[in-house]
Amino acid sequence: MLHHHRAQFPALANKIYFNYGGQGPMPQGAMDAITQTQAYIQEIGPFGAEAYGWISPQMQATKQAIASLFNVPNDTITFTGNVTIGCNIGMWGIDWQPGDHLLLSDCEHPGVIATAGEISRRFGVEVSTCPLMATLNAGDPVSIIAENLRPKTRLVVLSHVLWNTGQVLPIDKIADICRNNNSLLLVDAAQSAGVLPLNLTELGVDFYAFTGHKWLCGPAGVGGLYVRREAREQLQPTFIGLDGVITNNQAQPIDWQPDGRRYEVSTLATPLYVSLREAIATHNQWGTAEARYQQICKNSTYLWHQLTNLPNIKCLKNSPPQSGLVSFQLTNDQPNVKLVKFLESQKILTRTIANPSCIRVSVHYLTLESEIDTLIETIKQFLS
Amino acid sequence: MLHHHRAQFPALANKIYFNYGGQGPMPQGAMDAITQTQAYIQEIGPFGAEAYGWISPQMQATKQAIASLFNVPNDTITFTGNVTIGCNIGMWGIDWQPGDHLLLSDCEHPGVIATAGEISRRFGVEVSTCPLMATLNAGDPVSIIAENLRPKTRLVVLSHVLWNTGQVLPIDKIADICRNNNSLLLVDAAQSAGVLPLNLTELGVDFYAFTGHKWLCGPAGVGGLYVRREAREQLQPTFIGLDGVITNNQAQPIDWQPDGRRYEVSTLATPLYVSLREAIATHNQWGTAEARYQQICKNSTYLWHQLTNLPNIKCLKNSPPQSGLVSFQLTNDQPNVKLVKFLESQKILTRTIANPSCIRVSVHYLTLESEIDTLIETIKQFLS
Repeated sequence: MLHHHRAQFPALANKIYFNYGGQGPMPQGAMDAITQTQAYIQEIGPFGAEAYGWISPQMQATKQAIASLFNVPNDTITFTGNVTIGCNIGMWGIDWQPGDHLLLSDCEHPGVIATAGEISRRFGVEVSTCPLMATLNAGDPVSIIAENLRPKTRLVVLSHVLWNTGQVLPIDKIADICRNNNSLLLVDAAQSAGVLPLNLTELGVDFYAFTGHKWLCGPAGVGGLYVRREAREQLQPTFIGLDGVITNNQAQPIDWQPDGRRYEVSTLATPLYVSLREAIATHNQWGTAEARYQQICKNSTYLWHQLTNLPNIKCLKNSPPQSGLVSFQLTNDQPNVKLVKFLESQKILTRTIANPSCIRVSVHYLTLESEIDTLIETIKQFLS
Repeated sequence: MLHHHRAQFPALANKIYFNYGGQGPMPQGAMDAITQTQAYIQEIGPFGAEAYGWISPQMQATKQAIASLFNVPNDTITFTGNVTIGCNIGMWGIDWQPGDHLLLSDCEHPGVIATAGEISRRFGVEVSTCPLMATLNAGDPVSIIAENLRPKTRLVVLSHVLWNTGQVLPIDKIADICRNNNSLLLVDAAQSAGVLPLNLTELGVDFYAFTGHKWLCGPAGVGGLYVRREAREQLQPTFIGLDGVITNNQAQPIDWQPDGRRYEVSTLATPLYVSLREAIATHNQWGTAEARYQQICKNSTYLWHQLTNLPNIKCLKNSPPQSGLVSFQLTNDQPNVKLVKFLESQKILTRTIANPSCIRVSVHYLTLESEIDTLIETIKQFLS
């Protein structure tokens, strides 16, 4: 069953792939959708009433597929090029005043950190970082965030699954304490969208920035941002284009679009969005979001157990993982990059992480137990 | 010769296409490049040292192709998703202070107008609009801009070719007066990149925002921004991601990239950029940028003469066009949209423009005289 399903992903045929958290392999159907959509748009357009009459419902159908996956209304979804752009929309769109406070964790992506720094410089905003990395095995991230909230904390930016350690943050509880503090909560979903079964309405986040090209296995260059309806009026568009505004009969902008389009700029690559919808459909053919998550946890737990039994290897987490990321270190003083390169020479793809210095292995529902076994055997070979 | 060359563009086979200014038809080779690049990245990755070792020089080669087209150094080019994003980078990146002034013309795109409005609201910047539409047939745009510059004018935003009337602005002279006023000049190149032979170094602009999917006939979703080296330190990145920053060995951002990458965010759709390079190569096979521009002017002048001879038709311009855009109005009280719809029913694609209310026909070097003749005959049929 899984072997049959995996045969749809050409990238999985000639290597052992553990970089889903970097970029997911695309199903052939999602690649074919690009080729076919591109050709069809040329046939009916590319620019004219017929082409736009076809493109508009295609884009809407992809929004519907994403909205269904996240259990939210269609109008809360904005298309973006990737997760970082979604984070930027959420971070720049706050009506920042001098002396306001922006809170990050110490496990956020460099792009988010750099954006926070620039917002601080431009608007006189105070940025601080709270120590969540140390809560991987002990301590409570919720109480640490609570301690770091201030009266002037306007925005909290956190990852749902920490990209370095794979820790899953209790976003529901964090959303509660943010709301009680009148702080908006922006979640970086790079390592959670396509992994965790999600109901964003119940989760209570204000903004959820995701990408299509990692765990959802769509093409690079497509992603999006969920903006809770009640938070929409608190988030102003920053980068603005024709797609986001309503114009009058003199082509003058007179208002924002009433839905997630207000944060979109202009001219999206339609074929890539059709492709993402096809990728989501491929996952749904295999099983529900809940079933896929159970399989991911089964695989990451199996890998974690195997790694834990190896000498000279230390998993960062001292209990079974709850996401698709398993991070570990060499304890024999060899550099991590040496093992990653050795694995790549054997067609086994993993990556290093700089902070904390470790090797990150991503497993998906697509991962085979036999692939994990081969990884373990190859690590043993490296260590021996 | 041209018939042979045109055979590479499937969109031109089954219709008469006059919407190059909306979106250009793609050469088959540019579409094949997407399919092939997508497949190859899956074969070697998609994420790992081998994939990135291949992708990085591919992106660099596309920057080189664009830089050659514009006669500028590679490091001045930033990739963006479209021309409007390039304009946003240029407009948001100024170190705005309350009371600063931003000058637009009255022929700018709604996205640029809306962005100016939001910048005004956020930073207390004054925005004003100078009347260039009325200089299509008489008057001097340079002196009008000179009259509208103020001591606190930090940025001037203008289109090189006005998207509604097709007028070509004398950007070289405008750049001079802006420089003398210590005002930066951002040019919207939506209707000029791929039309005019360009030497941006000599032209003297600070920022030149372009798209790949109109006159360059690349895929939708790719474009870029030229930033003059001397203006780089005056333009701060706004939307920020991993691609734009240099990180230390703890994955902390410590500086901007030294070149155009500093304005890029993250995860671009590599196949689309390979495709754009292929599209540019296809044009170069036909002739130089200068030769293509001469052919465009020959075609637009031919069309303009034919339209001028028709009853109940008034070209907006009373002298031959200098770009690929020819705009005209019906003088018999019929709505423009009725003619555009009639033309589309005959597989002839044009578009309406809201302000000034008119019909816009785009002709490229790819346009055949016989296509123009058919357009004219069909308009006659409509009018009779």
